[in-house]
Amino acid sequence: MNVSTSPDSGLLSPVRAGTPVESVVSDTAWLQAMLDAEAALARAQARIGVLPQAAAKAITAAARADRIDLTAVAHGARETANPVVGLVAALTEVVAADDPEAAEYVHRGSTSQDVFDTGAMLVARHALGLIRAHLARVAEVLAALAAQHRDTTMAGRTLALHAVPTTFGLKAAGWRSLVTDALERVDRLLSHGLPFALGGAAGTLAGYTQYASLDGAGARNSSQDSFDREDFLRRLLDAYAEETGLSVPLLPWHALRTPVADLAATLSFTAGALGKIAMDVQFLSRTEVAEVAEPTAVGRGASSAMPHKRNPVLATLVRSAALQVPVMAAGLTQCLVTEDERSAGAWHAEWQLLRECLRLTGGAAHTAVELAEGIEVDSARMRANLNLTGGQIVSERIAAVLAPRLGRRAARALLTRASQEAHRTRRPLHTVLAGLPELDDVLSAGELSDLLDPTRYSGVADILVDTALKAPPSLATDAPSPAHPHFPPGGPECGCEPVHVRLG
Amino acid sequence: MNVSTSPDSGLLSPVRAGTPVESVVSDTAWLQAMLDAEAALARAQARIGVLPQAAAKAITAAARADRIDLTAVAHGARETANPVVGLVAALTEVVAADDPEAAEYVHRGSTSQDVFDTGAMLVARHALGLIRAHLARVAEVLAALAAQHRDTTMAGRTLALHAVPTTFGLKAAGWRSLVTDALERVDRLLSHGLPFALGGAAGTLAGYTQYASLDGAGARNSSQDSFDREDFLRRLLDAYAEETGLSVPLLPWHALRTPVADLAATLSFTAGALGKIAMDVQFLSRTEVAEVAEPTAVGRGASSAMPHKRNPVLATLVRSAALQVPVMAAGLTQCLVTEDERSAGAWHAEWQLLRECLRLTGGAAHTAVELAEGIEVDSARMRANLNLTGGQIVSERIAAVLAPRLGRRAARALLTRASQEAHRTRRPLHTVLAGLPELDDVLSAGELSDLLDPTRYSGVADILVDTALKAPPSLATDAPSPAHPHFPPGGPECGCEPVHVRLG
Amino acid sequence: MNVSTSPDSGLLSPVRAGTPVESVVSDTAWLQAMLDAEAALARAQARIGVLPQAAAKAITAAARADRIDLTAVAHGARETANPVVGLVAALTEVVAADDPEAAEYVHRGSTSQDVFDTGAMLVARHALGLIRAHLARVAEVLAALAAQHRDTTMAGRTLALHAVPTTFGLKAAGWRSLVTDALERVDRLLSHGLPFALGGAAGTLAGYTQYASLDGAGARNSSQDSFDREDFLRRLLDAYAEETGLSVPLLPWHALRTPVADLAATLSFTAGALGKIAMDVQFLSRTEVAEVAEPTAVGRGASSAMPHKRNPVLATLVRSAALQVPVMAAGLTQCLVTEDERSAGAWHAEWQLLRECLRLTGGAAHTAVELAEGIEVDSARMRANLNLTGGQIVSERIAAVLAPRLGRRAARALLTRASQEAHRTRRPLHTVLAGLPELDDVLSAGELSDLLDPTRYSGVADILVDTALKAPPSLATDAPSPAHPHFPPGGPECGCEPVHVRLG
Amino acid sequence: MNVSTSPDSGLLSPVRAGTPVESVVSDTAWLQAMLDAEAALARAQARIGVLPQAAAKAITAAARADRIDLTAVAHGARETANPVVGLVAALTEVVAADDPEAAEYVHRGSTSQDVFDTGAMLVARHALGLIRAHLARVAEVLAALAAQHRDTTMAGRTLALHAVPTTFGLKAAGWRSLVTDALERVDRLLSHGLPFALGGAAGTLAGYTQYASLDGAGARNSSQDSFDREDFLRRLLDAYAEETGLSVPLLPWHALRTPVADLAATLSFTAGALGKIAMDVQFLSRTEVAEVAEPTAVGRGASSAMPHKRNPVLATLVRSAALQVPVMAAGLTQCLVTEDERSAGAWHAEWQLLRECLRLTGGAAHTAVELAEGIEVDSARMRANLNLTGGQIVSERIAAVLAPRLGRRAARALLTRASQEAHRTRRPLHTVLAGLPELDDVLSAGELSDLLDPTRYSGVADILVDTALKAPPSLATDAPSPAHPHFPPGGPECGCEPVHVRLG
Repeated sequence: MNVSTSPDSGLLSPVRAGTPVESVVSDTAWLQAMLDAEAALARAQARIGVLPQAAAKAITAAARADRIDLTAVAHGARETANPVVGLVAALTEVVAADDPEAAEYVHRGSTSQDVFDTGAMLVARHALGLIRAHLARVAEVLAALAAQHRDTTMAGRTLALHAVPTTFGLKAAGWRSLVTDALERVDRLLSHGLPFALGGAAGTLAGYTQYASLDGAGARNSSQDSFDREDFLRRLLDAYAEETGLSVPLLPWHALRTPVADLAATLSFTAGALGKIAMDVQFLSRTEVAEVAEPTAVGRGASSAMPHKRNPVLATLVRSAALQVPVMAAGLTQCLVTEDERSAGAWHAEWQLLRECLRLTGGAAHTAVELAEGIEVDSARMRANLNLTGGQIVSERIAAVLAPRLGRRAARALLTRASQEAHRTRRPLHTVLAGLPELDDVLSAGELSDLLDPTRYSGVADILVDTALKAPPSLATDAPSPAHPHFPPGGPECGCEPVHVRLG
Repeated sequence: MNVSTSPDSGLLSPVRAGTPVESVVSDTAWLQAMLDAEAALARAQARIGVLPQAAAKAITAAARADRIDLTAVAHGARETANPVVGLVAALTEVVAADDPEAAEYVHRGSTSQDVFDTGAMLVARHALGLIRAHLARVAEVLAALAAQHRDTTMAGRTLALHAVPTTFGLKAAGWRSLVTDALERVDRLLSHGLPFALGGAAGTLAGYTQYASLDGAGARNSSQDSFDREDFLRRLLDAYAEETGLSVPLLPWHALRTPVADLAATLSFTAGALGKIAMDVQFLSRTEVAEVAEPTAVGRGASSAMPHKRNPVLATLVRSAALQVPVMAAGLTQCLVTEDERSAGAWHAEWQLLRECLRLTGGAAHTAVELAEGIEVDSARMRANLNLTGGQIVSERIAAVLAPRLGRRAARALLTRASQEAHRTRRPLHTVLAGLPELDDVLSAGELSDLLDPTRYSGVADILVDTALKAPPSLATDAPSPAHPHFPPGGPECGCEPVHVRLG
Repeated sequence: MNVSTSPDSGLLSPVRAGTPVESVVSDTAWLQAMLDAEAALARAQARIGVLPQAAAKAITAAARADRIDLTAVAHGARETANPVVGLVAALTEVVAADDPEAAEYVHRGSTSQDVFDTGAMLVARHALGLIRAHLARVAEVLAALAAQHRDTTMAGRTLALHAVPTTFGLKAAGWRSLVTDALERVDRLLSHGLPFALGGAAGTLAGYTQYASLDGAGARNSSQDSFDREDFLRRLLDAYAEETGLSVPLLPWHALRTPVADLAATLSFTAGALGKIAMDVQFLSRTEVAEVAEPTAVGRGASSAMPHKRNPVLATLVRSAALQVPVMAAGLTQCLVTEDERSAGAWHAEWQLLRECLRLTGGAAHTAVELAEGIEVDSARMRANLNLTGGQIVSERIAAVLAPRLGRRAARALLTRASQEAHRTRRPLHTVLAGLPELDDVLSAGELSDLLDPTRYSGVADILVDTALKAPPSLATDAPSPAHPHFPPGGPECGCEPVHVRLG
Repeated sequence: MNVSTSPDSGLLSPVRAGTPVESVVSDTAWLQAMLDAEAALARAQARIGVLPQAAAKAITAAARADRIDLTAVAHGARETANPVVGLVAALTEVVAADDPEAAEYVHRGSTSQDVFDTGAMLVARHALGLIRAHLARVAEVLAALAAQHRDTTMAGRTLALHAVPTTFGLKAAGWRSLVTDALERVDRLLSHGLPFALGGAAGTLAGYTQYASLDGAGARNSSQDSFDREDFLRRLLDAYAEETGLSVPLLPWHALRTPVADLAATLSFTAGALGKIAMDVQFLSRTEVAEVAEPTAVGRGASSAMPHKRNPVLATLVRSAALQVPVMAAGLTQCLVTEDERSAGAWHAEWQLLRECLRLTGGAAHTAVELAEGIEVDSARMRANLNLTGGQIVSERIAAVLAPRLGRRAARALLTRASQEAHRTRRPLHTVLAGLPELDDVLSAGELSDLLDPTRYSGVADILVDTALKAPPSLATDAPSPAHPHFPPGGPECGCEPVHVRLG
């Protein structure tokens, strides 16, 4: 097998193997996105009259990944430290085959980083579109779960031990709130965090301007001196925004890497938020706890050795992503410290890290949908586990009730003593308390029983659930309008669509 | 010397040693912030009638760091894994000394994490307030610098080499845009990203509710059953927001660590953004380049060995922070993956990392003010360096101009050849080009001279500067209102104020 | 309170608050270590005859942290980006007060980084000495625990579920092996991984050589030309090694940061290894599992809200360190990418990260001793939990035994089916299997009972324990000789000793 | 194009695109390595008589990646969270097609993690073999370079400024020492740091033992009771070591991840060490400095915009790896904190990170060979740059010489003043000093000229080079014997060989 075309099958990354995000961030997709950037540039230049419309059409028609030798471009990148030099040569050749004159206009006035970064933002937008759809679905499912289990009492656990009761509804509402936090951050990026790159060799757009002053209306109608640079700039930026569907940056950002740092932060947050859910699901699935179970499917969760195992594999996959993305995101953030007008290394270090962050988070979000949709909740087991401590789980409550009667300090000391006694003798707290002479005239047997009922000590969990579920799935005031023509269609299926941007 | 009171002098962290942020995030400040959280809680409970006003007053009066043995609390934390258990005991003792009855009401219904996290947000707000003021000042100074050098041409450098000309104005405007990006992120946090923590033992507010139903109006006027939990919750949250000046969280966030992850992302971005500026300043200060110099001061930049050195120490300090914060922030982000209702370790890992991120970023921002305010720009040297390549710095331009005359490919090949010849023979590009017969009828001597003038090939750098400087310092639509009573006063001096929140 | 002397009480870092490592890495200790480096340098120079003995004595006598204003040095470091410039000035003043002539010889030919790095290695050696002693004790205790529980069967858990039986002995032996792995890595560093720094301004020792050729050879009545640089270098290196007890580096390492990267790797490994133990202890302490408990002590593990809680606080502290050290170590490792002869920022970023890695790991190792020494193991509960799956925990075994009788695939399918049936009907696997007609002539009732006994299916766990315990606590063939005069005394108490190196 | 077979062309990772390491760590190679682990297991079991020789042969013959559907295995891994379950099923099918009886013996007694981890160590060994060969070559080339330029004086630079002179020989010797440090660490791993994994379902080898006692002892006509487990264990471990060429672990390491942490540390160090070299090369290549240049090749270093550029692309690629590996390595190290007998997520997070660390470091080492072999050194330019400060670069020396004549403090103050004057007036230091009346009788004109010659102030740089080059390329006392049959052949070409281990 040819080394260079060894498939990236996801063998070492099952969290994303075969999921929609793979096709959106693959080498092929990235190549196509860079070609889309080149084509969009030509169209934008044509639109404002500094490049022939026919050339823009020819370039757009030629800018297809299947007409370029991906491996040759990839390996050629070693000579120039980026794949765009080779890509431009290859594209020029393809265009020249169709329309020799148009070949003169490929990559007109441009530089490698403009094309690569614009392509990267197109890829990121597609991947975030998928992630957004997945997160929205997870939020929806968790909202239903929280509503359904609004009053399902279970043990609240802190520092590994039963603390006081809570409800599964509150837990699910908490999970959902993390997901909506992630959604909000994704929406913020989608609405104005993904700019195109257009700076030319060192961020001054000198090449674009030079060609435009030669080729453009100025050249045709007037002397170079009368070329209106400000008007040209404004029209070029608008046209490129239209053609790519990306935001207009305040300044060329070759060495001002805010968009990449923002992507890093958002993806890291999203993976971590999903990781929290996975961590909880794993613990609640444990043999000793058994309060939730992952959705079962034939063969799912099987072990190669043990016939009885039904491993929590979805949570395992999600957690594996949550362990990887934050460190990679740190790598991306460090690339903010980039020297000069364009860095010799910090930029190059971003590419693979960004792809991995997108891919792992995309896989984790997809997996979280499966997990959330199929999770099985065993309320009876939750109820049973609530009694494991023989009433100690409400010791806080008894202490509170006794405080005004015995004084807080005395009440607490009494409860501490009683809890230790209960633990030592393995008797229920109820029995121990009932036997304490200090409580004879303080707490009636009936009151004690009532107070010790763990299902009646979940505070305002129900109200918190109600309130939290009223919050919209994304609080981003600047959430992307679904009608925006460039916004990627929602739903996992959009990953299967071609990554082309307006090939026409 | 007593080990436990070994001072934290900043010996190993000069980027923040002696800067205002130190006092805002010190152990003492943190202790005070936790005391402020306790006092604010008592006042909030009193405000809604579930705790005696006198007790709230007594607790507020007692909640002063100078009345608590910091070291004892710190060392005692080893027994309970957090300092709040010991702090509550110590505070109770102090209150009891003043007003024994009030002591019953300390930490009423609360839990360690509520107090710690609320304290942490108070500390973060103060530190961010300082950072905000520093960043605003840096942005202001850089804006002036960019305007002043709007037309100062210099070599644009990419991949370590002279590329095409740019202007120092554009470089400074780029630096400023990173700073305003940081400002925007800080403002977003300050306006609604720092919530108080109020969940009780496992996030259900059961303890608060239990005490309130016993102590509150309900208990005094009606049976427990008629206690209106929803009303109580709403009023308690509002009152605590008023007392702390922090946001109301959607849900108790003991195990939903969005605020911490957001702080991590913002601080990491800010440190990295400042690091980019530092990196550029260092390069431009190099002996061979000498285009900018750090502000000189007596003794500043001195070497212990070399009398002639004037080291770029401010940039060095800023860069040292930029190298540390992102990895620490990654540690914070990973703590999103926290188990149960409260984690046994992930929460505890956050504290020191958060303080360091605040402190290093605060020190870096302070240092950046000094750096920006005093930076010396040598325009003459920039102009001189622009000629170092003998005209090759505008080879892109010549290629563009020749493209329509010779064909793009031929033009580019010719320039490549001429550049190599110029490099090999160490002759100016002008001389080499002038000697090429291919150009005889293509480019006149005058035209060639004009084209080779590097000061006339900076594209739209000037327009970019104008546009960028029109952007407001922070684009956050939700920027904090300066009139907000809880917003920390701007300016470095606020660090010297006591951290108390409304003591009475 | 004076901001600058705000104590570093460990309030935010209970894993190390008040533990021995604190005093070894404190600002004061670091200051002293740098003074020790200065004094050792003077003595080394005196030893080889290039500096007056009287001056070396005076410098050594003066080089005491309590004679230097720590805060002034720390704050002064902002002017020079490192604390050594100010330290040298302060030390010179102190020496001058005692012996004006000797003051001429302070820091003779040296540079800041030589002093700082040598001091850092002295600090690291002390901290590693403590860590080594703690790890050795943990290994010892775990060995005893493993031996004691060699045959204590318990559930082996994989992917969160009961898998097949194991023994607590094997688990403890595994923990110990991680600790001995850590010990081996610490020993490797202690024996030859901590070099002194001696390079002069740019790593050529030019200053040292220049002064020596003036002071030394001159003093010995020979012309400068006949000054034997090679002999001088060899003797100086040997003398400094003797005076500091540190290794001789192959080359000056101002910009070759192998020792720091090695420290980072070793500390990160150690913290992570202890973190694994903590993670297991936490899980086994969970209310539902309750197979081990942390040592109890009055007040230990108390909650501020819940009287019954006995939180696994030691494991929590250890885990908090394990979450922090690896990211900080990554920061240190990245500082390998340092430019020039000495970096403007990468070096400075190391200091605080190194101290934190030492301090957190030192605290974690100390805490692990407490944890290991006091851990309570509940064998009866282990035995009880082993039956939780009703025999499914040995399904692998039944499948193996049936494989030759039914064919592997059929055997496995039968077990999968029976396990699902047992799970669904909540009956023991034994009952389900006994009712299967397919097994009528294949497995007798007695054989089935034997096979389903989980205590008889722990493979070679016992032999593995025996073998592992025979391995020495540290396999480092180059373990440090305890007799080495410079090796820090073992045991936690050594932290309380002054950090001085040969003050005389 | 089929998503699942989208090629991994290295488009986003040019540092390794098309280099030998790619084929060694590709999905296909990893699949093959796992198959090798399965085959070696069967052969080992056959060797000790617990599995039929014919079955081992059949399994070995079938265990070829080209007989398995890689994509199906990869995607199937989502159901089980690891690829081995599906791999075993696929392999069993292939074996069954050849020899139905042998199919019973595939994966006998084993578990997924044994196969995956053993495969991973085989992959790591191959990749480290390549890296070792590359590093050895870099060390060799740098040694020659250091020897050649032993006396080539150049400016030593610290904190971005000219400090004192050094030599290029010393710089190259320093680079080499980092490379030999890396070599030593790689050798340590290759000689005994890469163990096979053999633990069975939960690390007790129960499955292996159970099958062996049925198949083996039975086959040897003895009752199960007399089955000698200790002898079996010893023989099985030895046989597997022979068959895989990997080390025997002290204990099964499913949850004791020392080998992975060691790989992380070594790869991170290696990438960082090469990054330091790259950083220096980039700076020395800068237009203003121009002291070294990367090897030129047709098309190498070309820009898509600027015909004159010859970007330092090799250093850029190496630096891009150095920025990525340490953060990924931190992710690996954190996976030490793994719960239970086998983790639900921490193990799974390792795979991709480990592959990337191997691949990026392998690519960087390959690239470093190209860089070192072709680097061009411009001694004349070094000499010229040495004069840029007009003699200030030796101010330390003048201060030293004047110290005994004027007193150290006065001498230093005088030099500081003179340097400032020289800087301010842009006159050479020589001129300024010559004009100082204070020096009239102190320093003759001739002495001053001599002292100001920067080529005569490089300390003992020459001796340091000589000493450093005498050090062997790897100091690992336990370096792998080249004769070891399992050690991968040196040199880049070995990557192209099949990864099979003893197929027969």
